[in-house]
Formats: sequence, structure tokens, C-alpha cells
Amino acid sequence: MHDFSISLDGFGTGEGLTQDQPFGHAGQRLHEWMFSTATGRAMLGRGGGTRGVDEALVARSRHGIGAEIMGLRKFHTGTGPLPDDWRGWWGEDPPFGTPVLVLTHRPRPPIEMAGGTTFHFLDLPPAEALAWARDAAGGLDVHVGGGVSTLRAFLDADLVDDLHLVVVPVVLGRGQRLWDGLEGLERRFDVEQVATPSGVVHVTMTRREKRAGRRTA
Amino acid sequence: MHDFSISLDGFGTGEGLTQDQPFGHAGQRLHEWMFSTATGRAMLGRGGGTRGVDEALVARSRHGIGAEIMGLRKFHTGTGPLPDDWRGWWGEDPPFGTPVLVLTHRPRPPIEMAGGTTFHFLDLPPAEALAWARDAAGGLDVHVGGGVSTLRAFLDADLVDDLHLVVVPVVLGRGQRLWDGLEGLERRFDVEQVATPSGVVHVTMTRREKRAGRRTA
Repeated sequence: MHDFSISLDGFGTGEGLTQDQPFGHAGQRLHEWMFSTATGRAMLGRGGGTRGVDEALVARSRHGIGAEIMGLRKFHTGTGPLPDDWRGWWGEDPPFGTPVLVLTHRPRPPIEMAGGTTFHFLDLPPAEALAWARDAAGGLDVHVGGGVSTLRAFLDADLVDDLHLVVVPVVLGRGQRLWDGLEGLERRFDVEQVATPSGVVHVTMTRREKRAGRRTA
Repeated sequence: MHDFSISLDGFGTGEGLTQDQPFGHAGQRLHEWMFSTATGRAMLGRGGGTRGVDEALVARSRHGIGAEIMGLRKFHTGTGPLPDDWRGWWGEDPPFGTPVLVLTHRPRPPIEMAGGTTFHFLDLPPAEALAWARDAAGGLDVHVGGGVSTLRAFLDADLVDDLHLVVVPVVLGRGQRLWDGLEGLERRFDVEQVATPSGVVHVTMTRREKRAGRRTA
């Protein structure tokens, strides 16, 4: 799990999520730091951007990933079943370039996009989802992209080798809190906290007993 | 408010507080960083200790303070009325050296200790408590020492000029959470986050519109 932004009070998203405001009352505040980096600006089709530690961490998370796992509500903010014509937030050429496993209780046929991204819609618990994604990743790492409840489920099942959180200095007050139910999480990880001039703190948690070979981030 | 330690998930104290474990299941984990500093070690009657940024922040918080405000449960962990013979946690020569206002619904006569500390037990809302403490502080700053609910009450009433939190990389999971009800707090402050080699992050929040003269920390 990389580049996952939370507020000072631990919320990974706000309240009142809509198609227009996918992070609810948090707006863009949790992700401004990322769109100030060179990689973040390139994602918006712009040049420039910072090239320091924020950039290094964002850039790293975009290399060596062979498959992505996400919850349904990252693929589509909203309630109820997916609209038939919904093809994700990211346009026709999504930034993944890999198989993407969307976890849902209502499986449906895959959607093949440009640039190597294919969305697969399966109903799997975390360990089986990881096994599926490892198989799809062809020896590369598997990235768990969120949202909050998906991250929590994978952390709770102890399936995460590398956790990189970004603490943004805002107090959201409400929304979905990452930390709930994760008491003692730090005992399984080596933890670093590094502040950068953009004002955020990168919290990197590295699993103490690494599995040999492929990793889950 | 200075040197107030919280966990990654925002708890300022754990669950299950007792006389033997005043921070409950958190134990000493929230405060180890402080007792590694030169000032922290001196408080325990020991020499040595770090002399970097952790130390500078701890040392700063012990100068220029003319009065202390604390909640009853910082003065005495436990439920029900104060035992008649309870004189605080800090021995006969407490580290304050100033008037200390202990907020309680059951006022009682002051207790004069060695070294200039006198505990006063009054039933005052935050703004009146601050007025009392300012008067007692003789032109110096007023320090709000905790616990969590007392800090929240003063922040909620917008009575705080300087807030210094220390985020310790543990996930406590339960206890008393500082952030509840403080949505948007950062808008009133300039916020810095600085990580130090001890592994903690110092979050300093400085009120944007300073009152002239005396300050509340």
C-alpha cells in the first residue's frame, strides 16, 4: 500500500461522497501534496512539480507493480449496483497498466481498457484476492489501492509487507477512519516517520519478517 | 499546550487507567521519547539524554510558564471524589513551581507544596479558568497540561495560542482520542510537522491571529 493519504485525525476520506466529490467534504485536501510532485503533475498532463522526497515516494509506487487490488467504492463512488456503462474514474487509458482486481459482491465480466489495464470484478476475501493478484502480477509486486475498508481488511489479515501512509495536516473530523481495529499494528512493522517541506509526514511501515520473493504493497 | 503525546491513531491515553498504570494499556509508550531527552532524564534525577530537537522542545515548555491548568484526572487517575490525603503524582516538590489550577466540580482548599507549586481546586469553565490562570501567572504564559478532555475543551473554546503535539508511532486502538469534535482545527493555526530521529513527529500549531501580550500554551 503506497501513497495512502490520511488526515491528522486518521481519516482516509471524508463524509458525503458523491460522483463530483469522491472524497466528500475532504475535497482535494488529502491529495494536494501528490499533485505538487513531478509524477503527480504528469498524471494531470502538466509539467514541472517537485523532485524531492514526496516525488521519490510517488514515483516508486508506480514501478514494479504487476497487479492492483481495490474495493468497489474506489472504482465507483456511490451506493447500489454499478451502472452498466461505468468504466472507472480514470478515462479510457487508466494509470495502472496492469490487471486490476475490483472486489465486489456482484461479479461481472472484465473490462479491457487501453494501455494494459483490465478491470476484473470478483467476490474474494483478502487472502484469496491476494493469491489471484499474485498470479496475475507475473512476479511483480501487488498494490492494494484502497479505499479505507479494503486497506483495513488487508492489514487486519496481516497480508501487507509495505505500508506507506501520508499524514496531511488537516483535521477532517468525520469520514472513514483507517486506524479503527488495528491496535498494535506497529508491532509487526519497522516504522519510520519523515516530514517533508510540503508539510506532510510519510509514515513507512515495513513488515519485520519479510516473505521471500514477491511482496504486497 | 506543549509536549502532549498522542498515538498514530490520536489517543492521548489508553484504556484501563489505574493508580499503577495512569496511562492504561498505553503504559510508558507515549512518553519514552521524552524520558530520553536531557530534561526528561533530569526529571528522573538522571544525567545524560539527547540534546537535539526533542530536548529543545521539552526544555522550552518548562520556561516562561506562570501558571498551569489541568483536569482532575491528570491530578488523580481514578473515579469518584479525591481521597482526602492525595497530593498529586509528583511528590512533595512537583515540577511546576507555579500555581496549578485543577479543574473539578468539587472545589476544596488549596494545597501548598514545596518549590512554589500550589494546587488550587476550582469549578470553572475554560474561559474563566484561563482568566484565573492569567491573573495568577504574573505576566508569564499559561500552560494547559491535559488530560485529553481538558485539552479538547480549551481547543474547542478557541483559547489556545500554541499547540505542540508529539505523534508516537504506536497504534493504541482505544482510550481517549484527542481529535474528536475538532474538525477544521488547522484553519486557525499555522501547522508544522517535524520528524526527529527518536521516531516521533512534532506537530506545532501556532495560532494565526496572535493576541497581543500573554499567551496560552
